[in-house]
Amino acid sequence: MQDKKTAKTLLDITAENIKKIKDGEIISVENSLGRIISENIIPQNEVPPFIRSAVDGFAVISGDFLEKKIDKFRVENQITAGYSKEIRPLNSGEAAFVTTGAPIPPNADSVVLIEDAEEYAGGYMVYKKKIEKGSYISPIGDDIKAGEVLFKKGHRIRFCDIAALSGIGMSSVSVYKKPSVGILSGGNELTPPGEKLKTNKIYDINTTVLKSLVSDAGGVPEVIGAVEDDFEKLTQTLKKADESSKYDLIVSTGGTGASFLVLENKEIKNFYDLVPSAIEKTGKLLFHGVKLVPGKPTSFGMLNNGTPIFALAGWPYSVLITFDLFVRPAIQKMSNYKDLYKRYPSVKAVLKNDIIKEDGVRKYFQVKLTKSGGSLYAEVISAPKPPSAARSLSPMINADGSFVMEEHIAHLKAGCFIDVTLNDYEIEG
Amino acid sequence: MQDKKTAKTLLDITAENIKKIKDGEIISVENSLGRIISENIIPQNEVPPFIRSAVDGFAVISGDFLEKKIDKFRVENQITAGYSKEIRPLNSGEAAFVTTGAPIPPNADSVVLIEDAEEYAGGYMVYKKKIEKGSYISPIGDDIKAGEVLFKKGHRIRFCDIAALSGIGMSSVSVYKKPSVGILSGGNELTPPGEKLKTNKIYDINTTVLKSLVSDAGGVPEVIGAVEDDFEKLTQTLKKADESSKYDLIVSTGGTGASFLVLENKEIKNFYDLVPSAIEKTGKLLFHGVKLVPGKPTSFGMLNNGTPIFALAGWPYSVLITFDLFVRPAIQKMSNYKDLYKRYPSVKAVLKNDIIKEDGVRKYFQVKLTKSGGSLYAEVISAPKPPSAARSLSPMINADGSFVMEEHIAHLKAGCFIDVTLNDYEIEG
Repeated sequence: MQDKKTAKTLLDITAENIKKIKDGEIISVENSLGRIISENIIPQNEVPPFIRSAVDGFAVISGDFLEKKIDKFRVENQITAGYSKEIRPLNSGEAAFVTTGAPIPPNADSVVLIEDAEEYAGGYMVYKKKIEKGSYISPIGDDIKAGEVLFKKGHRIRFCDIAALSGIGMSSVSVYKKPSVGILSGGNELTPPGEKLKTNKIYDINTTVLKSLVSDAGGVPEVIGAVEDDFEKLTQTLKKADESSKYDLIVSTGGTGASFLVLENKEIKNFYDLVPSAIEKTGKLLFHGVKLVPGKPTSFGMLNNGTPIFALAGWPYSVLITFDLFVRPAIQKMSNYKDLYKRYPSVKAVLKNDIIKEDGVRKYFQVKLTKSGGSLYAEVISAPKPPSAARSLSPMINADGSFVMEEHIAHLKAGCFIDVTLNDYEIEG
Repeated sequence: MQDKKTAKTLLDITAENIKKIKDGEIISVENSLGRIISENIIPQNEVPPFIRSAVDGFAVISGDFLEKKIDKFRVENQITAGYSKEIRPLNSGEAAFVTTGAPIPPNADSVVLIEDAEEYAGGYMVYKKKIEKGSYISPIGDDIKAGEVLFKKGHRIRFCDIAALSGIGMSSVSVYKKPSVGILSGGNELTPPGEKLKTNKIYDINTTVLKSLVSDAGGVPEVIGAVEDDFEKLTQTLKKADESSKYDLIVSTGGTGASFLVLENKEIKNFYDLVPSAIEKTGKLLFHGVKLVPGKPTSFGMLNNGTPIFALAGWPYSVLITFDLFVRPAIQKMSNYKDLYKRYPSVKAVLKNDIIKEDGVRKYFQVKLTKSGGSLYAEVISAPKPPSAARSLSPMINADGSFVMEEHIAHLKAGCFIDVTLNDYEIEG
């Protein structure tokens, strides 16, 4: 076991070892929100694909009005959107009624709004306002041009991009594959939720939470399973998972703590850290122990066959915090995200309590926010009983958000401004 | 057709008419992120369900050390997490090795950290540091108590709540049903993406975009289909959809513009607004026309059988803006969200251009953001050619975000601060 290092050191080590996924896959455009394009998109089709009217109105030859001073036009044709027959060219003095999105007859170069026509009856349309050549007409490729790069490889798909991809006729798109994340929960005491709890057992929280977190972060969760607190069994499980090449990343919970007991004839012969030791046996343990609360025993390593593994501490509160701090950015990087983004918004709030913490440690606090006189106030929710910063869920459940005291800050005075990252999109009233 | 009103008026009218969904459904806890709890949750199980150790260490009787001044303890038992046999009570002078999460023997009232033990060998453990009664022990229900309301009906499920629900043994949870949103795209010119485009046809962008937007907003998209520009057919489609009671909301695109042509013997006999007219025929048109760019012809109504309907203008850019402005809050309200939240974060930026717009109109602008000297600068991206504020997608595709000029603002000077809502979580570099 190495000396405990800062969260920053662990982030640097994971950044060096976590690789971007290079494989692409074809998915439907309608399900592509947030996915990363894996090949430059060069449209085969122009948008619009023909010269079209932008409004309901009358297509005219602007010269008729501007030069020939004609203001009464014979309505010679009615062209609706989707018109599929050949359209005869407009002659001087003629107009064609066109609906929004309809093609424009050859020769016509402008459209006037139906609301701006003085009258239209008896097969004629009278127009006396201004005309600008090209008004209310979209040329071919006016919006999106064929043959030019529309989206570069690496671009993350937004709603407007789904519109653009549909507009150029694409129903599917090539994006980078999502990382497959193997989930391993350790502990003899774990019982799946929904089953009956036996004596001295607890419900397995972390498998469910990690499935939800991994999906949300952009990964595909794959449950490897619950493993007993048995070094040989765990080592075999890790080896098998690594050699299967099924997982781009493994996340384990539990078994990272300061000891695991080796008993011989009721004597304590040795103790070690179960998961970190198993990682050492099946690969390289690159990091064990962070100056961090919660999440002190967080570990990271690379298995022999190249699978990175995060060994998170078993307390669910610790899992929630360390997933966001370490695992989410790793999944985002694997997913080819350019920017690693935070899940929820932050707000500024005035701290209500004085807080003192150990120097050199990064520590998370859960806070309740209240509004008063236009300001937000943050009150730290303490865990049920010290020392229990990691083992209780209830402070987070009762909180609106959390804030972090960085390593070098030992004391925050009541009244100072802090950045609170919300636990949801908004503060629940 | 009524006079055009403000976006606020339309929001008020929809708020009056859009009802919260009252029906619940049972879903798996792992897929419950963001869903709204439809029944108070009262745990049947305590967390933790037994007195347990919070660390790896030795369970002792604190009185032995504090009063009897014992500092060498016979290690009488080794209790690991999940231990299922009966545990014999500790006698004075005895200690039990316990792992994190393990049950504590009867009589023991404190745990000391294994790292704090002076030595442990030959069946003995020597301890000379301080002991506080209750240290590193979690009493039953310390974190979550059985029989007390844990989550109130109406609470939106966060990651930590998934942890809590799993912790009390729930694998499924009762939440409000998602609203079913019927999608109707109008226009003879529409061709599904992926198919070959015929003369004067365009690809149907809106169906795909609305499916994506509706899912993202928390609704279940159901495609009613593409409808020809035919009043009778559209009226029948609306009537059928309304009477089926399959949809909590209908969203249509296209056919809201200033006219639809009725031809008789090549004469323009009449014109009207296709979808708003069909709404009037099958229910009540409550709103038609907003002082808004893009989205001027946006309409809203209630069909006879009680289905609310938004009729959005057909231009995809307009659909993207008006969905966020009107439809997303409606879906969120139907979904029983307490707070209506914005999809993407906002940033402050310095406006680079002077902007003048018509007074009384709410107008959206797409902007490119650049960083310079620690500040963000926003440059408005103009549409390919005026007047085309609504009909082009490309400004939004090239933008980092958008900002809105409210009705009463006619002029913004370069150099002023504006609030830019990003088109994604981060500014793409």
